[in-house]
Amino acid sequence: MEIVEDKILKSTRWLTLVERIYKDMNGEQQAWVMAQRNNDCSAVMIIPIHYTTHHETPQKRIVVTKEYRVPLGDYEWGFPAGLIDEGESALSTAHRELKEETGLNLDEVTEVSPSVYNTAGMTDEAITMVYGNCSGEISNEFQEASENIETFLMAAEEVEELLKGDHKFGAKAWLILKEFVKIHNITERKYVEDTTATLP
Amino acid sequence: MEIVEDKILKSTRWLTLVERIYKDMNGEQQAWVMAQRNNDCSAVMIIPIHYTTHHETPQKRIVVTKEYRVPLGDYEWGFPAGLIDEGESALSTAHRELKEETGLNLDEVTEVSPSVYNTAGMTDEAITMVYGNCSGEISNEFQEASENIETFLMAAEEVEELLKGDHKFGAKAWLILKEFVKIHNITERKYVEDTTATLP
Repeated sequence: MEIVEDKILKSTRWLTLVERIYKDMNGEQQAWVMAQRNNDCSAVMIIPIHYTTHHETPQKRIVVTKEYRVPLGDYEWGFPAGLIDEGESALSTAHRELKEETGLNLDEVTEVSPSVYNTAGMTDEAITMVYGNCSGEISNEFQEASENIETFLMAAEEVEELLKGDHKFGAKAWLILKEFVKIHNITERKYVEDTTATLP
Repeated sequence: MEIVEDKILKSTRWLTLVERIYKDMNGEQQAWVMAQRNNDCSAVMIIPIHYTTHHETPQKRIVVTKEYRVPLGDYEWGFPAGLIDEGESALSTAHRELKEETGLNLDEVTEVSPSVYNTAGMTDEAITMVYGNCSGEISNEFQEASENIETFLMAAEEVEELLKGDHKFGAKAWLILKEFVKIHNITERKYVEDTTATLP
């Protein structure tokens, strides 16, 4: 497989529709239409955990957002995210976007994904996922006028209920929230998934 | 927020570039450029588990694909996936695509996600994730000429190594593979994640 050339079909400020000519496995020339973001950089999604002590019980909650998405014409449940500005690092973007969208502070980064692809059949758009711990109070005073984002701190039981509801979820968010519930349940119920395993 | 109208900027056989006019929170008219798939239906991704008994030891392996992606100009690690044909259900697509892309048979469906959104800032493209158990031998004889997919059966230890490598991963695949390793490690190492928890 080999890329021969890119033909711009339509260019706009943010997105460009491209016809990519390539040679298939038989050496024959084919065309694939794709969308490209004009800024040549990745996006960042932040998966923030918020620990609070409530009545002396420490509680682990995940920060979830509900954001109006024009392409869906509806609200989508997901995580804080944004595009990396020119010259910015993925980690700086994570700090900035979490503050802007939720008012929370990213105190500690616990894991960073490689740059991975959202939907590689349609676009080369890539995203880096930054896991971390945060603190502070939820606020929308740092949001841009065009943003319509509500932020929630959710314990595993609340996420479990949310997932049962008739909502629109981001694909990555659905997977992350499902894992959050699963790990919590394995941990809290004090058993391991493989029931044939013997505990020490 | 309210959608006012969609203007087609450029239409091709598979993808259309659309300028969506909407009213923002202040009632002001704004434009958002998005890509739309022309077929008005969702895609399906299959996350297949393959159990084999090797030297009397049952082994749980996950089916992973390495597929050439024209928009990346490179190979991407992920899972079997495809578009739902007209009149087809998500589950039929899962059976068909797993067979076509890998040669394996989907014997049992264990979980089905709702229709979730790959990257809602850019497109309304949706995907359903189908988890299940499969059997059979890997084969590429059912692949279309345009497809270039290699299939691997991987135990958790092999996935852990794969994730450390310098590869391109689908975003959903990276999350699913990471969870597969994490759950395996929690289970196999016979401890629970929260080290303050006491075992029964």
